[in-house]
Amino acid sequence: MTGTLLLASGSPRRREILAQVGIPFSCEKAACDEVLLSGDPEGTSLANARAKALDVSARRPEAVVLGFDTVVALEGAIFGKPASEEEARAMLRALSGRTHEVWTGVAAARGGRLLGERAARTRVRFRAYGEEEIDRQVASGEPMDKAGAYGIQSLGARLAESVDGCFYNVVGLPIFATMELLESIGIKA
Amino acid sequence: MTGTLLLASGSPRRREILAQVGIPFSCEKAACDEVLLSGDPEGTSLANARAKALDVSARRPEAVVLGFDTVVALEGAIFGKPASEEEARAMLRALSGRTHEVWTGVAAARGGRLLGERAARTRVRFRAYGEEEIDRQVASGEPMDKAGAYGIQSLGARLAESVDGCFYNVVGLPIFATMELLESIGIKA
Repeated sequence: MTGTLLLASGSPRRREILAQVGIPFSCEKAACDEVLLSGDPEGTSLANARAKALDVSARRPEAVVLGFDTVVALEGAIFGKPASEEEARAMLRALSGRTHEVWTGVAAARGGRLLGERAARTRVRFRAYGEEEIDRQVASGEPMDKAGAYGIQSLGARLAESVDGCFYNVVGLPIFATMELLESIGIKA
Repeated sequence: MTGTLLLASGSPRRREILAQVGIPFSCEKAACDEVLLSGDPEGTSLANARAKALDVSARRPEAVVLGFDTVVALEGAIFGKPASEEEARAMLRALSGRTHEVWTGVAAARGGRLLGERAARTRVRFRAYGEEEIDRQVASGEPMDKAGAYGIQSLGARLAESVDGCFYNVVGLPIFATMELLESIGIKA
């Protein structure tokens, strides 16, 4: 399969990761509401990834469109982006000293139809930290646009003791799953 | 304990990681030969980290000096930086489709004496790839100054299927182990 690869995302982090691994692409942000399927982080990440890919594909039928969605799951609860600083604090408090899961769904579409999809899971163990660390994270402004209220690629790296799985999944774009998906639909990455 | 924190390293990657997590420091490159203890990646990384920290500490006795060393271990063999493109190719061929270990030793010194040390291990699983991918990596020039002939923070991210442990250890500075070591010697990170 040939054609422009189009990233259905406004996230600078996702752009940086695709560029880092040398995959040529252009960008167009999707305009669709995100759903949250209670108790199903994998299904949530896939549903939103599909919706983003199909939304952009309807406007750009010639391109192969990739949609992504990342959520954080802790003991049955799903954390998206915090709506307020208070919610960011509550998320960071809940994650301290525990292991959570990060799920990113990736979906590919062309001509308004789904070509394929994958979901990647990475386990992330956080060290135990106190209110001072939470204050520092929130004061940096970083938590507000990130699922689970942290960015492991920036100041949030202070929180992580270890990861198990694809690291770049935690940043928002699982490189291995994305390359696998592209290969499965005949695109050489 | 107070005093300037001094990074005994010329690595821009280690500087970026310390800066990323908000730890103030200055830099002075160590001038010492690196050892390789056959069959002992942990001991190798610690011996070199100690030597770097003590070398700089002898010249800068007032500072708390941090030395680091990173090696890659695969089935008993230790991979440092490749000495040639041919050696880089051989390392990348050996790592394909296998799980290797990355060890980073970190040592702290002051007044020419060792204050403490830690070693961090991260397991890295590589996907199976062929000569075309190896050509691409070597042509990028990235392998030549990196233990194991890849940089997981750049093009080498194409190779990794998953990691288990501290991701930043694989880049060259294990954040969690370093913060633990600083805390153990009374330095607030």
